[in-house]
Amino acid sequence: MHSAHDLIAGIRKYSAPRLTLVGAGPGDPELITLKGVKALQSADVVLYDALANDALLAHAPAQVPKIFVGKRAGKHKLTQEKINTLIIKCAYHYGHVVRLKGGDPYIFGRGHEEQEYAEAAGISCTLVPGISSAHAVPSLQNIPLTKRGISESFWVITGTTKAGVLSDDIRLSAQSTATIVILMGMHKLPEIQAVFQENGHTETPVAIIQNGTLSNERVGLATIDSVTSVAEELQLGSPAVIVIGEVVREHPDFIKNQLHEMLHAYDNVQPVISG
Amino acid sequence: MHSAHDLIAGIRKYSAPRLTLVGAGPGDPELITLKGVKALQSADVVLYDALANDALLAHAPAQVPKIFVGKRAGKHKLTQEKINTLIIKCAYHYGHVVRLKGGDPYIFGRGHEEQEYAEAAGISCTLVPGISSAHAVPSLQNIPLTKRGISESFWVITGTTKAGVLSDDIRLSAQSTATIVILMGMHKLPEIQAVFQENGHTETPVAIIQNGTLSNERVGLATIDSVTSVAEELQLGSPAVIVIGEVVREHPDFIKNQLHEMLHAYDNVQPVISG
Repeated sequence: MHSAHDLIAGIRKYSAPRLTLVGAGPGDPELITLKGVKALQSADVVLYDALANDALLAHAPAQVPKIFVGKRAGKHKLTQEKINTLIIKCAYHYGHVVRLKGGDPYIFGRGHEEQEYAEAAGISCTLVPGISSAHAVPSLQNIPLTKRGISESFWVITGTTKAGVLSDDIRLSAQSTATIVILMGMHKLPEIQAVFQENGHTETPVAIIQNGTLSNERVGLATIDSVTSVAEELQLGSPAVIVIGEVVREHPDFIKNQLHEMLHAYDNVQPVISG
Repeated sequence: MHSAHDLIAGIRKYSAPRLTLVGAGPGDPELITLKGVKALQSADVVLYDALANDALLAHAPAQVPKIFVGKRAGKHKLTQEKINTLIIKCAYHYGHVVRLKGGDPYIFGRGHEEQEYAEAAGISCTLVPGISSAHAVPSLQNIPLTKRGISESFWVITGTTKAGVLSDDIRLSAQSTATIVILMGMHKLPEIQAVFQENGHTETPVAIIQNGTLSNERVGLATIDSVTSVAEELQLGSPAVIVIGEVVREHPDFIKNQLHEMLHAYDNVQPVISG
């Protein structure tokens, strides 16, 4: 790992190297903030990842370099260390670096690490928060994370921990009355189901929302007992937001789906003709 | 309580009554989304509350009525029922109602109730999510709610429940390793402190951020044991975001403050002159 000093040596020092971490929001390019757009307009270089919508890049001047540094679970394009060093190189070479990250840079985004690394190299940093998919994606499916008389709190948990195991927070959350939102959890879905079942959840409603806010958005509505089979049937995969809790009943299709499942259960029952 | 039918009777029916619930963000008027600005630009009437920054109203056309329906804890201006009926009257009288709410309309904002009421009256509804102060206010104080190796989740809880008592979720949260964010909790601070102390927290860091993202923002950094005295000393009050968890140590002043407190404890110790 190169030190910040090594990196800076030999690079033409720009008079005012700076970094703005910008939250791009959940996908829909109109869900970026005015402040985020202004940052892009004054960028000398943009580093963006796969989760940000490409349409957002149009806010930056045409001649400004736009560098893809995206990574997705399992398919790393650039290591985090390489992104950290690239930010520093770009700041000293170009000036104002805009680091555009999906959602909010500080929510499971490692934005804080990028900022610490840049600050250690003498780069001044600014944060522009973004709309997190954790609440916006359920909201736009008509599922409020909190509702008077139903839920007084929501708990946002990553399904993918540093150690690769299921987070202990998910185990404790299964004992709570909070609305549970799990990000990056689709590959752990059977384990999540088992943990909730062990804590007495069977009919608790679950929503899985894949590609939230985008044109290819898809939704699965289920209960804890049916969630793995519904996900399989609808072929739902990453990236997705998983919402567990009574607020999921607010989704306009939830009751309809439940009735459909009940009727389906009678399909194989032979009618008894009396008389 | 008037029915939706009673309300509509006698009002000149507008051809396309509609409601857009817009999240105004945490306070800074540049933290609204592009989609929120577009909604305001096409508003025929704006209903706004006290938490939204007045500068946001400038996005709506000058001739459009802008009606304050704000309420603050303890000082209700309009009841929720009156706001619900006003939305319906305005939609049928003016056309496009923009309901501008601080933060995100669906996070402790009763936006979902307003939408249900309007939909029941035949008004088509759209949601524009907003940046919630729950994560943006701590972030802009350099406190990430999640950080690899420190916190894998965050739990957002209201301090003000429907019943007026401390939420059971706060009791359970004191047993978790999640970062805890409490909104509308300042009047329950001694109770919150006691619950965390009962669960073995003494030196767990706490941040209180009042008027986050605004020019009059003020911050108190403390531990569970010192939080009520720090809040009193700095005269911190509502509206404020309370953050409890190890991530608060990331605040640049946290260690400095702790050292200051330690030194202060020695102030009254008489030096022993030896020799």
